Amino acid sequence: MRHLLKLSDLSPEELLSLLNFAKGIRRRPADYSSACAGKVLASLFFEPSTRTRLSFESAMLRMGGNVVGFADVSSSSAQKGESPEDTCRMVSIYSDIVAVRHPVAHTPEKMAAVSRIPVINAGDGANEHPTQTLADMFAIHDRFGAFGGLTVGICGDLKYGRTVHSLIAALAPFASTRFILISPPELAVPGEYLDGLDGRRLIFSPDLEKNLPELDVLYMTRIQKERFQDYAEYHRLSGRYILNKEKMRRAKKNMIVLHPLPRVDEISPDMDDDSRAWYFKQAEGAFFCRMALIMRLLGLEREI
Amino acid sequence: MRHLLKLSDLSPEELLSLLNFAKGIRRRPADYSSACAGKVLASLFFEPSTRTRLSFESAMLRMGGNVVGFADVSSSSAQKGESPEDTCRMVSIYSDIVAVRHPVAHTPEKMAAVSRIPVINAGDGANEHPTQTLADMFAIHDRFGAFGGLTVGICGDLKYGRTVHSLIAALAPFASTRFILISPPELAVPGEYLDGLDGRRLIFSPDLEKNLPELDVLYMTRIQKERFQDYAEYHRLSGRYILNKEKMRRAKKNMIVLHPLPRVDEISPDMDDDSRAWYFKQAEGAFFCRMALIMRLLGLEREI
Amino acid sequence: MRHLLKLSDLSPEELLSLLNFAKGIRRRPADYSSACAGKVLASLFFEPSTRTRLSFESAMLRMGGNVVGFADVSSSSAQKGESPEDTCRMVSIYSDIVAVRHPVAHTPEKMAAVSRIPVINAGDGANEHPTQTLADMFAIHDRFGAFGGLTVGICGDLKYGRTVHSLIAALAPFASTRFILISPPELAVPGEYLDGLDGRRLIFSPDLEKNLPELDVLYMTRIQKERFQDYAEYHRLSGRYILNKEKMRRAKKNMIVLHPLPRVDEISPDMDDDSRAWYFKQAEGAFFCRMALIMRLLGLEREI
Repeated sequence: MRHLLKLSDLSPEELLSLLNFAKGIRRRPADYSSACAGKVLASLFFEPSTRTRLSFESAMLRMGGNVVGFADVSSSSAQKGESPEDTCRMVSIYSDIVAVRHPVAHTPEKMAAVSRIPVINAGDGANEHPTQTLADMFAIHDRFGAFGGLTVGICGDLKYGRTVHSLIAALAPFASTRFILISPPELAVPGEYLDGLDGRRLIFSPDLEKNLPELDVLYMTRIQKERFQDYAEYHRLSGRYILNKEKMRRAKKNMIVLHPLPRVDEISPDMDDDSRAWYFKQAEGAFFCRMALIMRLLGLEREI
Repeated sequence: MRHLLKLSDLSPEELLSLLNFAKGIRRRPADYSSACAGKVLASLFFEPSTRTRLSFESAMLRMGGNVVGFADVSSSSAQKGESPEDTCRMVSIYSDIVAVRHPVAHTPEKMAAVSRIPVINAGDGANEHPTQTLADMFAIHDRFGAFGGLTVGICGDLKYGRTVHSLIAALAPFASTRFILISPPELAVPGEYLDGLDGRRLIFSPDLEKNLPELDVLYMTRIQKERFQDYAEYHRLSGRYILNKEKMRRAKKNMIVLHPLPRVDEISPDMDDDSRAWYFKQAEGAFFCRMALIMRLLGLEREI
Repeated sequence: MRHLLKLSDLSPEELLSLLNFAKGIRRRPADYSSACAGKVLASLFFEPSTRTRLSFESAMLRMGGNVVGFADVSSSSAQKGESPEDTCRMVSIYSDIVAVRHPVAHTPEKMAAVSRIPVINAGDGANEHPTQTLADMFAIHDRFGAFGGLTVGICGDLKYGRTVHSLIAALAPFASTRFILISPPELAVPGEYLDGLDGRRLIFSPDLEKNLPELDVLYMTRIQKERFQDYAEYHRLSGRYILNKEKMRRAKKNMIVLHPLPRVDEISPDMDDDSRAWYFKQAEGAFFCRMALIMRLLGLEREI
């Protein structure tokens, strides 16, 4: 039995094979409409996340499976002081696979340690959100067919954004790919996430517009108001990192813009129709990645 | 692709055909038990409404479909500032049809504008709740076989009740039907909802008991405490509009009492056994109307 | 049509036959995977309880049925003042069976009085939680094949614990079974729950360790902090009733430890691997009991 607790649980070969499996499902979804018949996903969201939760649940339903769970800790026994480990043992009784979102880092690992069924980390605090990174990698692979030779801009809150840290780690093995890390100095990537990365592959810049023409991928993230004590400072900074139709004129014709979503206003809706606005395709890819992952962890994958 | 955002999206012919389709489903529900197999309803309740939500969700499940969604904004990404439009785009990825309840008027319209799948308005603030009105019309048609020639009393809070305004609009085209609008002057129907209605079809009265003997239909609504600054005034008024077994002696033998539910105490449970107490039948009709609507919007309707 | 509102709704023969039916389902679960196809369970949790709710919902899903409902009163029409009776009438329209958890004692009875479909009490305040007791009896029967001739220790909060009171009532008819009631005097079983029980079958003791060697069954419960005004007193008492690996050395080799769960710290995880730690098996049994109960109340039970 296997879990997916962090993206590095997958070897690069396994990652690639999973992305290809996801593409296969996207190509012929009808072939998978009963693939998980009789199986139950326990969807345990100790903190709310509509997007991720609905994506997992729909993935299971679309494959003929069923779902039980909770969307919020207020509806869960955790209120009575039950440990996540015990919650996991309980749901192991009536389900076949668990997807868990928890505000405390490493909780999914603790649950996996006592679980009789596969556990998928659907986001654990500041730590990891591996199926998001899977979706990010899917989007890049879908568009470029490879991970090497790209210039990847990452913009916004690079200090706290866990998806940013995971994406850098996932792309690091592809030596010909460079990163342009665009943020105010206060929100720069902490050094620990760049350990072992050749400095020649890294550019740090506070400037989105200047770097835009170079990028093959622009990964946008939200700057969270609550990170700032000074509201005027927040406003000044966040304004500089708003991507819109006007700015996109400077970008390459075949680049793509990604975003883990939900966005607030860092990407203007006026560019949603641009073919390079790839964030909704990215979310669609996430859905197929989750289908592929569920099937693989349940041991239901077959040659296609 | 079509949406149902307001009842007037349906022509009178379409409305009638939909009501007849709903009757057909009620007659032979087993014929529809797989009608939506493989389809997913996204049930997006940005504010809670058990009754409407469960009715939609059960309608889908009874036709072999599946449901994802949320029951409350606290479990949704809206907390993170996501626009309803983006939420709709997201769920378009993994579902086939949306039912949305939102506290802000016209939000379903905005969602429909960006949606790739049909959107049903399940209530938007003070604006519309078209499937409730569909159910109201179903109940009347079910009982009388027509909409003309009736005396329809509407009682309670006629100022703020969106179902009241929609019902008046829906019945207005049937020129031989008259309205007796029973409310305290403070809670009278605003003039804008009576525009174009021949004054000879309208009677305004503060008195329920006096008008009861005339009515073919009595549509009761709840007077909400929070509308009043003066609690004694609320108490005096709401007491006058409580319908009970005793008062029902004055009503016609073949009239019906409707209520959009939930009721608080404006209809006494002592009259629930009266054959004219039609409000639970009305709720049952709502369920079949929603089945019919889902099938029609999904393009799954067939001759019966 | 039948309900399950309290355990004594079942005669001893019916109870035994239900437990045997549950064992049959456990033996061949695949035979029941479509047993409830086309049926809908309304899962109405007016207060949260993950464990019970997920167990009921999974039971229905595993038998091919579907589920609608709410996990919390904040998502329900009860906020608008709807009575539980009206909620029950509403859901009778679109479902086939109801499981209800409510903070107010006897609410499920009131709902059953107006219901057109079977109602299962999933816990009503301080009153009853019959499917928990069913699970407790299942565990004992599963291990010992009978209810007589046992020494049953019950430890912790015996004053407020409804599962304790129900278990005593359920075992009382088996005259050869004795009870050792282990609690601080402040939390002793109220006399009314011992009415009619031969005093020779009852031992009262504040001491867990001393009595442990005698027990065939030890039923542990949580001592709730909120019962105490004096925190030091709570801490002193609750510490005395923590069961762990060390203490278990004094227990019989073939006894079992039960707990209604969730536990907080009254059972140390260091004994989870002990074969006498039966609480998770107990929870698994609860799941099969709920499947059996749903089928029986729906009239779908067949010879196996």
